[in-house]
Amino acid sequence: MEINEKSNVLVVSGHAADYVWRAGGTIAKYIKHGAHVKVIVLSCGVRGESNDLWKQPGQTAESVLKMRKSESMAAAKCLGITDLEFWDYQDYYMHLDDDDKIERLATTIRNFKPIHIITHGELDLLNPDHDEVNKFVFKASVLAISNGVKISGTEASTQTRIFGFEPHQPEICNFKPEVIIDITETMEMKKVAMNCFMAQSHLIEYYAMRAFVRGNHAKRLSGNQSYKFAEAFTRRFPYVGDWLV
Amino acid sequence: MEINEKSNVLVVSGHAADYVWRAGGTIAKYIKHGAHVKVIVLSCGVRGESNDLWKQPGQTAESVLKMRKSESMAAAKCLGITDLEFWDYQDYYMHLDDDDKIERLATTIRNFKPIHIITHGELDLLNPDHDEVNKFVFKASVLAISNGVKISGTEASTQTRIFGFEPHQPEICNFKPEVIIDITETMEMKKVAMNCFMAQSHLIEYYAMRAFVRGNHAKRLSGNQSYKFAEAFTRRFPYVGDWLV
Amino acid sequence: MEINEKSNVLVVSGHAADYVWRAGGTIAKYIKHGAHVKVIVLSCGVRGESNDLWKQPGQTAESVLKMRKSESMAAAKCLGITDLEFWDYQDYYMHLDDDDKIERLATTIRNFKPIHIITHGELDLLNPDHDEVNKFVFKASVLAISNGVKISGTEASTQTRIFGFEPHQPEICNFKPEVIIDITETMEMKKVAMNCFMAQSHLIEYYAMRAFVRGNHAKRLSGNQSYKFAEAFTRRFPYVGDWLV
Amino acid sequence: MEINEKSNVLVVSGHAADYVWRAGGTIAKYIKHGAHVKVIVLSCGVRGESNDLWKQPGQTAESVLKMRKSESMAAAKCLGITDLEFWDYQDYYMHLDDDDKIERLATTIRNFKPIHIITHGELDLLNPDHDEVNKFVFKASVLAISNGVKISGTEASTQTRIFGFEPHQPEICNFKPEVIIDITETMEMKKVAMNCFMAQSHLIEYYAMRAFVRGNHAKRLSGNQSYKFAEAFTRRFPYVGDWLV
Amino acid sequence: MEINEKSNVLVVSGHAADYVWRAGGTIAKYIKHGAHVKVIVLSCGVRGESNDLWKQPGQTAESVLKMRKSESMAAAKCLGITDLEFWDYQDYYMHLDDDDKIERLATTIRNFKPIHIITHGELDLLNPDHDEVNKFVFKASVLAISNGVKISGTEASTQTRIFGFEPHQPEICNFKPEVIIDITETMEMKKVAMNCFMAQSHLIEYYAMRAFVRGNHAKRLSGNQSYKFAEAFTRRFPYVGDWLV
Amino acid sequence: MEINEKSNVLVVSGHAADYVWRAGGTIAKYIKHGAHVKVIVLSCGVRGESNDLWKQPGQTAESVLKMRKSESMAAAKCLGITDLEFWDYQDYYMHLDDDDKIERLATTIRNFKPIHIITHGELDLLNPDHDEVNKFVFKASVLAISNGVKISGTEASTQTRIFGFEPHQPEICNFKPEVIIDITETMEMKKVAMNCFMAQSHLIEYYAMRAFVRGNHAKRLSGNQSYKFAEAFTRRFPYVGDWLV
Repeated sequence: MEINEKSNVLVVSGHAADYVWRAGGTIAKYIKHGAHVKVIVLSCGVRGESNDLWKQPGQTAESVLKMRKSESMAAAKCLGITDLEFWDYQDYYMHLDDDDKIERLATTIRNFKPIHIITHGELDLLNPDHDEVNKFVFKASVLAISNGVKISGTEASTQTRIFGFEPHQPEICNFKPEVIIDITETMEMKKVAMNCFMAQSHLIEYYAMRAFVRGNHAKRLSGNQSYKFAEAFTRRFPYVGDWLV
Repeated sequence: MEINEKSNVLVVSGHAADYVWRAGGTIAKYIKHGAHVKVIVLSCGVRGESNDLWKQPGQTAESVLKMRKSESMAAAKCLGITDLEFWDYQDYYMHLDDDDKIERLATTIRNFKPIHIITHGELDLLNPDHDEVNKFVFKASVLAISNGVKISGTEASTQTRIFGFEPHQPEICNFKPEVIIDITETMEMKKVAMNCFMAQSHLIEYYAMRAFVRGNHAKRLSGNQSYKFAEAFTRRFPYVGDWLV
Repeated sequence: MEINEKSNVLVVSGHAADYVWRAGGTIAKYIKHGAHVKVIVLSCGVRGESNDLWKQPGQTAESVLKMRKSESMAAAKCLGITDLEFWDYQDYYMHLDDDDKIERLATTIRNFKPIHIITHGELDLLNPDHDEVNKFVFKASVLAISNGVKISGTEASTQTRIFGFEPHQPEICNFKPEVIIDITETMEMKKVAMNCFMAQSHLIEYYAMRAFVRGNHAKRLSGNQSYKFAEAFTRRFPYVGDWLV
Repeated sequence: MEINEKSNVLVVSGHAADYVWRAGGTIAKYIKHGAHVKVIVLSCGVRGESNDLWKQPGQTAESVLKMRKSESMAAAKCLGITDLEFWDYQDYYMHLDDDDKIERLATTIRNFKPIHIITHGELDLLNPDHDEVNKFVFKASVLAISNGVKISGTEASTQTRIFGFEPHQPEICNFKPEVIIDITETMEMKKVAMNCFMAQSHLIEYYAMRAFVRGNHAKRLSGNQSYKFAEAFTRRFPYVGDWLV
Repeated sequence: MEINEKSNVLVVSGHAADYVWRAGGTIAKYIKHGAHVKVIVLSCGVRGESNDLWKQPGQTAESVLKMRKSESMAAAKCLGITDLEFWDYQDYYMHLDDDDKIERLATTIRNFKPIHIITHGELDLLNPDHDEVNKFVFKASVLAISNGVKISGTEASTQTRIFGFEPHQPEICNFKPEVIIDITETMEMKKVAMNCFMAQSHLIEYYAMRAFVRGNHAKRLSGNQSYKFAEAFTRRFPYVGDWLV
Repeated sequence: MEINEKSNVLVVSGHAADYVWRAGGTIAKYIKHGAHVKVIVLSCGVRGESNDLWKQPGQTAESVLKMRKSESMAAAKCLGITDLEFWDYQDYYMHLDDDDKIERLATTIRNFKPIHIITHGELDLLNPDHDEVNKFVFKASVLAISNGVKISGTEASTQTRIFGFEPHQPEICNFKPEVIIDITETMEMKKVAMNCFMAQSHLIEYYAMRAFVRGNHAKRLSGNQSYKFAEAFTRRFPYVGDWLV
């Protein structure tokens, strides 16, 4: 597969930092090789993913929101992302089942025409928002490809591949790696991006080790000794193509 | 992935016709594009997969064996296979757990150095031989890559990808397609090859329809309207690589 | 089990053609042997299952709706169905979680007193409407049998058996056939009924082959050589009865 | 683990009697040894779990509600429960997905600070209310521990263990016992408590036998011959601690 | 399904009492209605299932064997069984993977031509012998139906249905009831038969309660109030037939 | 649970280093608090787990065996283990299904009377030896507790708890942490022990990170901030006890 400026990849992130922890290396790699990656942050995670910020006395929701957004923008820049959208939905607990929200995302998919969508996988036993995002993205993708769903100014797109993020505790979430992407060449960029998030500093070391562990798996499963760091994903549908991969 | 004369693919088939029903189109495609495909037929299926032949009065095991082998050779030829081995183990019920047999296959793997191994998947609820072959191939592949396993005249090979055939009744065998290969360009060759097997004529129409059904899935999942026929496989390990596939 | 005019069977179909593709042969067989089959079509699938119709320039929702309904009526007639209801809910994406809709179906169940309900199974990885219908029917069936749920003019019914349709791509939807019904005697009627759907012509050949494939399974699993075509279903609850079946 | 008056245990029961059938012995044991157990009954089950009461001519919802509540209070007393709340939500079919209800429970969790929460497990194939309660309790528990979720007069609590009730037909609900609690010393109290429920008399013998069956399992799995009666639970998260248990 | 003297049912029991605990009521019912039930006891369970007998001082293997066999014969008589075979294999740990043993059972199947085989299910987490029996029976059944497997004096039989016993602790063994048989009319016979086993007296009350529990499930799932006691089984293959069951 | 000199823990390790990578911290902790831990190393892994050693020119099996054994003894010493047995079975591929080997382990269990057995879990998709060990230990444990299994000089022991190691790539092996043990206090000992294995130096960093990752999980799931490093295990049977854990 050749990656170039026509390779559109859509990332839908539940909260302000999810796309960095879970797919930052892959995103940076796609961009570095010429792809256009659009990241949608559905919520800045003011309520659910900003614990450290709330420990400051006199903290307010406005201030947390501002800080999280600014951190997310900084991290995106580190990864080379130039197309970043904040949809500012409320988190904890997210409600994404209404027609307007689903149509909004379907519209984006039709206009952006991604070859891949990367978002949360099917189950996160510790975070109900992530499960809601998974269902939301899937429904929108189904509407996007159906030409009977009329959305002004758009045309039905074609079926895209949908990949799922690795959750924080993969085994208890039934997560099985189906696609492991080598991120050795962008691992440093990911580390810099992760360091933008002050509210979740405890996760920076964690996700660096996770990348090392997946890199070890990548090396063992492929026999390719140059793999050092990796990110793992699920794939919603079977692979279809010309050759066994 | 570029396919050429260095692309070695090893197919391990429990019985004389399994590789044709389950992977004939894929094998023919690899060969057509320059790959070297070696097929090992562990057993000719005299006891378990020759029901129609045994209906003839005065039938003998020798005659059935001869006929099955000759059919299998004819079918292989139709697919372009020039490297076909018969190991002549007994079927129904196959015993493949002894060290000699495992070492024999490990030796073959080390010498042939396949990029892929294709064989029976983990469960065939209707055929215990197929399950035995699955375990056998896996054990041999593990021995092949371990350089502490000393086999005269060989060196340890590197980890290969292992793909599983679709069984006859996939759902009751927990079969989930993980890799679906378009065989539109070799479907006619597969049909001709299938027609070589007189003892299992009822399967010819069945596997033609199966290829159509999988072709429909391939089209639906990929949006690629040129896909008409396909074969499905499981993959023993996650995909590892540079890009999402 | 004797089938007669007291054998009421309720079929709840998400869209205008689902009951035909997935259970047309079984429905026709029940009717042919004297049963009363009521089919409820929750939605005509104007948005999600009418792709071909929408390709015509100047197409409108009214016209698509009219055409789908008329096709569905024609197909029903081919199968011998005389009791067909259109509930005209919106599809893509269906919302069936409100009390009014659930009570409406519970009322129907109480009045119709089906021995079986046939509807969508638990998971359709490609179609979120189908999953919504599955949950909807189950909730309504639970309300129907509870005599504390007061619905004017009705009395609580007794527990019915609930069977699930085979989805379009069964393996990726965790579909396992639990009940396979021989439809050899009504296969021709099913074919004629399928041919009524102009908007989904690509499915006609597909579901004919599917019936052949399931017929092959039926033959192999039962040893009954007269089985040629079949339809497969899941069963929500265990079988309970006097003898092993 | 030492049980004392600081050992707060929260039980969230879908209907008026669930906590008795499924955890009565365990609750009584905790109380007997000094713990504080708070039981929240979300609904009295007027519509869905009062079938016998509704058989009386002229029965009204008010009368059923009164009777169920009074039975539940009597049973609670038998178990030693002094902290019992009725939230009086409608059952069949329960809607617990709105923010107010979730925040109400999150508030309770923050104020009560339970070491354990016991509630319905993940799947009850026969009762959709129970599944709704499971999701509801989980969401509330997530909000309770997040200090960005501001609820007047409360502070974020710490992660608690969540245990799942055994459903009525465990195997078809994918229920696997993960924690089996010996209730030999409180079995008599449980029996007395169960006898308070006139509307579900058929369940009293059933749950007595269930306790015997689980007691047999407890004995077999532990080798401890003093175990005679037991209750089984699932655990939402892995056990974490100092020693293998 | 009409049961008569041509309804041959084969039961393969790992140890001397398994067929009584797990299928005694069903066996007695088949016999009472005219079927021919053949029971094969592979082992008398001298080592693994005679704990109480071994507590007697001076006990010998010969004496235990004699006692177990005599108890099993007495129990068989209570159920109406006249065709009981002891194959006297060693238990704990059973080895059933050699060709002679498999062919012996295949021969029996070919000669007896059962419509059903009832034996141990796929997993018994507490008893490895039971798992070995499951695999053994399946392999023999496959050989029996293949006409290329030549066994002097026999002809290939047709595919039979295979049902699995409920293990002692069903949930931890992934046991799901698929077929629940009402044994109300033979429950008394089963109780009398169970009382023949002195070495496992603790199981008599246990399996009586189990039958009550399954009877409750049968009643609830079918709405048939006459069901009081039942036995549950798995079914190896899907049901195939003319009508939904 | 109080740990003291009567707390016997048996660890059965497939190869020379498995017990260190997978349970070294837990073993050291038990010993530090007074327990008696016996480690059995079934094989030194000359063929399958000594890749680095075999890279040396002129290497011999004798020399590898000697080195692996000496490394394993050194590592054991670092963990405080004084009871270490080498059974010197061949690895790659291990055959542990014969009666003599099973009886040998059963004898050890009867004599040692462990409260816990720790060994390989049910599936290691990359290593067939580990699966063989799992089955072997289970069978021996069943024989050990059955008093009809006569082994000279021994008496039947009681049922023990059996815990499973975490495999190298947990998710693809269906591994779910069921018991997570804090090893913060012995992590340094584990690191020192791991450094004894020259043939698998690439694993030392890997398992250090794994302990960090599990420590993060332990902290998150328990709320206990003092947890820094941990090891995860499966548990073969449900927990049985007096209180919810």
